[in-house]
Amino acid sequence: MSRRVAVLTGGVGGAKLVSGLAQILPSADIVVIVNTGDDFRHLGLYVSPDVDTLLYTLSGKANRTQGWGREGESWAFMAALRELGGEDWFALGDGDLALHVLRSMHLARGGALTGITRDFATRFGIGCTILPMSDDPVATCLETDEGMLEFQRYFVERRCVPEVRRIVFRGADVAKPAPGVTAAIADADAILIAPSNPYLSVDPILAIPGIGDALISSSAPVIAVSPIIGGKAVKGPTTKLMREMEIVVDNASIAAHYAGLIDGLLIDDGDDAPEGLAVMRTATLMRSVDDRARVAQAALALADDIARG
Amino acid sequence: MSRRVAVLTGGVGGAKLVSGLAQILPSADIVVIVNTGDDFRHLGLYVSPDVDTLLYTLSGKANRTQGWGREGESWAFMAALRELGGEDWFALGDGDLALHVLRSMHLARGGALTGITRDFATRFGIGCTILPMSDDPVATCLETDEGMLEFQRYFVERRCVPEVRRIVFRGADVAKPAPGVTAAIADADAILIAPSNPYLSVDPILAIPGIGDALISSSAPVIAVSPIIGGKAVKGPTTKLMREMEIVVDNASIAAHYAGLIDGLLIDDGDDAPEGLAVMRTATLMRSVDDRARVAQAALALADDIARG
Repeated sequence: MSRRVAVLTGGVGGAKLVSGLAQILPSADIVVIVNTGDDFRHLGLYVSPDVDTLLYTLSGKANRTQGWGREGESWAFMAALRELGGEDWFALGDGDLALHVLRSMHLARGGALTGITRDFATRFGIGCTILPMSDDPVATCLETDEGMLEFQRYFVERRCVPEVRRIVFRGADVAKPAPGVTAAIADADAILIAPSNPYLSVDPILAIPGIGDALISSSAPVIAVSPIIGGKAVKGPTTKLMREMEIVVDNASIAAHYAGLIDGLLIDDGDDAPEGLAVMRTATLMRSVDDRARVAQAALALADDIARG
Repeated sequence: MSRRVAVLTGGVGGAKLVSGLAQILPSADIVVIVNTGDDFRHLGLYVSPDVDTLLYTLSGKANRTQGWGREGESWAFMAALRELGGEDWFALGDGDLALHVLRSMHLARGGALTGITRDFATRFGIGCTILPMSDDPVATCLETDEGMLEFQRYFVERRCVPEVRRIVFRGADVAKPAPGVTAAIADADAILIAPSNPYLSVDPILAIPGIGDALISSSAPVIAVSPIIGGKAVKGPTTKLMREMEIVVDNASIAAHYAGLIDGLLIDDGDDAPEGLAVMRTATLMRSVDDRARVAQAALALADDIARG
């Protein structure tokens, strides 16, 4: 039986979930809707960190120890850039640059992110459909005790040190879902929200008019994979951010955040379940390739349970 | 005694002559006026091959075997670019990319080539002043049996195979000399034309209104270093080009080409001298570092002879 799955995702955690899905489903049945709120221009080049993480992870090129970039990357560009006094707070590997240079070139020539991403995925031999959430510019910005910071300045340059008060998604109100996004949600037999940061990586997607409505009107079960494990977020900054925004770090908060959108929550074996929501448990930390498949399988099993009523 | 020297130059040969000059004169007394007719956009990046050759040669970074790029360069970008289906006929090394990315960024922000080049030279610890011939776009194009080709398409992609009928410098008629260019010529005690290709590398400079006049009105002797050695140009394509344009490959042709502009011609030991022009001889092939200094010394000696009348 063919089962079409749409996944809303940020970078690392979501890429792992999708690579798990690709182990257990035909890749042609998987559509990935990726946050582009982190996209920015650096040294004049258009960088799309979450899309790139999906491209590298699903093509087997992702760096296995750090949460970004390519395995076996070299850094001659950065060394030369430093000598020339260029800004070096955001690391661009030599091989990684090819994506940014080509994407920037195609955008300058009038191309759209969706088509450019599709071409890259095809070149990398990726069978899943990777859709940027929008072809329009959306910029995740953080109001902090150091002032308003664009996402990468906060996340990479300032290493999440500033205290966050508020998160805004500039441009989201007038952005349109990228071609294929709402259709993928409407056509899906199951919709997953990846264990990405709900506030920084998933909310930008949901901030685009039409995407949340598509989730709500879909007849398919919507399952979120919780980013909470053992009362903490897998990635430290999420926990820090939740505390700064006075959100209790537990699954009840995640369930409340996605209230009205999701039908079920996949949580870690050791954590408390929120009330009033279908829940399934597994060990949600994805360290190994097998972990990824198991978490994906559990999310689909929860969707099946809900679909069967 | 301070002796200010201005040099009109293309890439490799001229860079060697200038590095020879820098061995025998204070670098602060040397102004290099560089052809930018070869400049082009590649993958959206602004590439300035002759300026870059000067930057790399004078900072000791130039590749010692090939006529372009950096020594010890790596090629991960090109490998990734090929995998993504990007155009790979023009090789961009990983370290080399830093120049192109930063230059493109500064140009996009409204910077001018002159200031950008000055900053790069300073960062590289270069004491000579490197001036692009113009901040305005000039494109050397070749009318060939394969149609009109931009310089890099002819030179790199087609490896000078097409037969050349005519050379045009698009934009030169409305281009202005870059700030400092005519002043450097006016202030010089000696002016050298490097042994670069007269038709492809020096003519674009002379095609800019005001530069030829500055040479003519200068009281300083103007010395060309002939690119002819043993009845051939040092670089094969120049010989091929001269033949296609029905120009005899000898120093008389070089003298005739620069007639009215130069006061003397430095030629190779083994070649015939043109009539009616002050000439000095040396072994003009610059293989070693010492060769460079010797050729530069001979060009200055000829300038001195002429200045003394």
